[in-house]
Amino acid sequence: MKNDKITLRSDDFAKWYTDVVKAARLADYSSVKGFVILEPNGYAIWERMQSVLDTMFKKLGHQNVYMPVLIPENLLKKEAELVEGFAPEVAWVCEGGSKKLEERLAFRPTSETLFSDYYRSIVKTYRDLPKLYNQWCNVIRWEKETRPFLRTREFLWQEGHTVHATSSEAETETRKMLEVYKEFFEKYLAIPVITGRKTEKEKFSGAEYTLTVESLMQNGVSLQSATSHYFGQKFAKNYDIKFVNKNNEFEYCYQTSWGSTTRMIGALIMSHSDDRGLVLPPNIAPKQVVIIPIKDDPELISIAEKINESLIDKNISSYIDYSDKSAGFKFAEAEVNGIPVRIEIGKRDLENDSVTIVRRDTLEKEVVKLNDVINKTVDLMETIQNNLYNKALNNLKSKTYEATTFDEVKDIMENHPGFVNAYWCGNEECELKMKEVRGTKSRCILENEDVHNKQCVVCGKEAKHKVVWGIQY
Amino acid sequence: MKNDKITLRSDDFAKWYTDVVKAARLADYSSVKGFVILEPNGYAIWERMQSVLDTMFKKLGHQNVYMPVLIPENLLKKEAELVEGFAPEVAWVCEGGSKKLEERLAFRPTSETLFSDYYRSIVKTYRDLPKLYNQWCNVIRWEKETRPFLRTREFLWQEGHTVHATSSEAETETRKMLEVYKEFFEKYLAIPVITGRKTEKEKFSGAEYTLTVESLMQNGVSLQSATSHYFGQKFAKNYDIKFVNKNNEFEYCYQTSWGSTTRMIGALIMSHSDDRGLVLPPNIAPKQVVIIPIKDDPELISIAEKINESLIDKNISSYIDYSDKSAGFKFAEAEVNGIPVRIEIGKRDLENDSVTIVRRDTLEKEVVKLNDVINKTVDLMETIQNNLYNKALNNLKSKTYEATTFDEVKDIMENHPGFVNAYWCGNEECELKMKEVRGTKSRCILENEDVHNKQCVVCGKEAKHKVVWGIQY
Repeated sequence: MKNDKITLRSDDFAKWYTDVVKAARLADYSSVKGFVILEPNGYAIWERMQSVLDTMFKKLGHQNVYMPVLIPENLLKKEAELVEGFAPEVAWVCEGGSKKLEERLAFRPTSETLFSDYYRSIVKTYRDLPKLYNQWCNVIRWEKETRPFLRTREFLWQEGHTVHATSSEAETETRKMLEVYKEFFEKYLAIPVITGRKTEKEKFSGAEYTLTVESLMQNGVSLQSATSHYFGQKFAKNYDIKFVNKNNEFEYCYQTSWGSTTRMIGALIMSHSDDRGLVLPPNIAPKQVVIIPIKDDPELISIAEKINESLIDKNISSYIDYSDKSAGFKFAEAEVNGIPVRIEIGKRDLENDSVTIVRRDTLEKEVVKLNDVINKTVDLMETIQNNLYNKALNNLKSKTYEATTFDEVKDIMENHPGFVNAYWCGNEECELKMKEVRGTKSRCILENEDVHNKQCVVCGKEAKHKVVWGIQY
Repeated sequence: MKNDKITLRSDDFAKWYTDVVKAARLADYSSVKGFVILEPNGYAIWERMQSVLDTMFKKLGHQNVYMPVLIPENLLKKEAELVEGFAPEVAWVCEGGSKKLEERLAFRPTSETLFSDYYRSIVKTYRDLPKLYNQWCNVIRWEKETRPFLRTREFLWQEGHTVHATSSEAETETRKMLEVYKEFFEKYLAIPVITGRKTEKEKFSGAEYTLTVESLMQNGVSLQSATSHYFGQKFAKNYDIKFVNKNNEFEYCYQTSWGSTTRMIGALIMSHSDDRGLVLPPNIAPKQVVIIPIKDDPELISIAEKINESLIDKNISSYIDYSDKSAGFKFAEAEVNGIPVRIEIGKRDLENDSVTIVRRDTLEKEVVKLNDVINKTVDLMETIQNNLYNKALNNLKSKTYEATTFDEVKDIMENHPGFVNAYWCGNEECELKMKEVRGTKSRCILENEDVHNKQCVVCGKEAKHKVVWGIQY
């Protein structure tokens, strides 16, 4: 049964996406152009993401801080590469307290400059190192075209900024955080990812190199999902962050930064949802189970309450829908909101000591004896999580191609897009040529690949790297 | 023993305050005038506050959302009273994406306008009501003079915004949230408070009335600590938020808002800390216990680890200071950082199967048998919490005065300031006259007070209210 508020994926994937967002009340457009409102269902997913990631960060010794939201133009300018990268996207505060400001202040597009400025003042010797700080905050990038979660002028994110005494320690941190993101995507979001290094053109301006987590949506379009940057001493030199090392010499620090954003909610939607609406993996769903008594009847409600309590005791986030609506309406709402499991309690089932359990991922219904409800539901959490991951992995695998000629790339991207693995000479010209095919960009350079005797997919010259290419969100 | 980085309270209370903030690494000045950096120790207190309050809000059915940080000038202007109140303090974004904007955008000083705009679009009938939304975010108010936590241009806060079908439901919400704040201050922050209604002059512009939680610092200066506003239909009429009520008629909604900020960290510092540095009540301390092995000795460390694990099992936030510093340095650091309990493990004590426990609130040391360490520490959490509350309550009581003449008020505020209870005619002129005495302002109107036959403390005319007056932070 089709949900008449949701366009079919096969008809118009982009429209389907915004329909799902709207139907599940994840986000709404606001009166501020390019800015959205994160509604309760959407924000709850973000809170859950924050909670899981924050715990992972803290286990590795990171601490949270909070930096000013505004950055003086002069300070931002110190890192020329950074400004150049972000300049077209900066929003500027020009007036404060009824007065024109002497110096414009940038709404942070990212906070490398403020962290560096702070580190300069607090890092004196190797004993002060490392500093492993992170912040959760809002940033602004003045995008022209916007879509909820995927690209909005303001978004929420976390940005980790660390400073170290040695390059190897900082490089280890860069890679460690890439692995944290990968684990988060795979274990919690049930989204398989590929990882690798960005090309010079696609890396974060100001970084020595950028490592990235890339995922592939159901429609074969790829999404940059989280990034981890190694800065070497670039910021340290520009912002004069020196420390006395163990040999009693002054040395510039080594830095990293790494970030993930509300865009992950977009990845979640486009990886698992279907024509009926949102589908959420149990490990990230704010509400994992909804219990719906089919009538407002004391016996049904009493059973619902018992099941609810038992599930909560098992650490399952369960609730009863007591609202003043028809059972049919409640079923539809649970479906469109992506609640992983729905338990329907009706008179007829109860005569056989049973209830009906409905899985959101497969839409399968099963009549289950009251004695088995709790175990069955607990098992379903893992089953659904694994099923969603495997479906997404199949999608990734079936849409990953090898190509050796430019024509092959064109054929794939135009007819059945996905990740294309192809060799590249390292020349930006060839990278730009790829862009002519539906905006195809390098997603990442695969590491440790043998490129001996391989040719660039564009120019045919000697290959330097094996690269994953994809159409960009 | 005095901490030589901290000015004595008796010498200069304001300097003492910033010394404590700095020594405990709660906040640091930034390169952005009027903006501070929340450092790990300060931000961890905020995270703890967020976690407790958020749980209290959610238990009452509130949900979190996130609204845009920028508000178009036109939308803000719709609520004239609100703009007038905030206009001098607004920061304006005038440029975005390298272009001058057609319409200036205000950095939110508060979000009534955006919530109202949103409610207008989603509230249709009484079945959609109430909506109980809250957001955690940053706001800017372009203050001239700033002090860490107490008054900064940017601060972090939560703002609840609710919309209801009846005035009585909205008024109940307003009062309920006041009680939530009061409970939070008393049970977690160990700060006794008084509550009441703001005068017309001191209420939130745009509110029908404002309820407030007021606290008194060690030096007798008062601090507005959290507020809860009843809007009636004022915003609903300006923003056209109508719903179809049960009688099938259109009616304007009834709204509330309520907020608390990082200023609470300032209240915490000035309520409990001493000349040695920060003092934190166990119920809000991010770290409740630090265990310090006096030497880097396997036996000491093994005992430290056993104690640490047992405390964590008892839900006490405990950690071992493994850092490469002298024991004396670690003791001093634990003290200045306000860790409620410090457990010192040394060879000599261990020969008697004992360790030394030091309370931060009283600085008392006690040698305790290993068998008793866990129970003793668990008990201390409650003991210290109660002791700090009682000390603060004594401070409040001993500095609360009754006055019937203006000269009495002057004498109190100039020589030993505190809360002054005094009758008031309700005239703004008399309120302004009070301000001449060291900026004394009405803190709140006490409710249900008999004013029969009482005279205004300023003009001697018939009293309308009994008011608490105080010097303002």
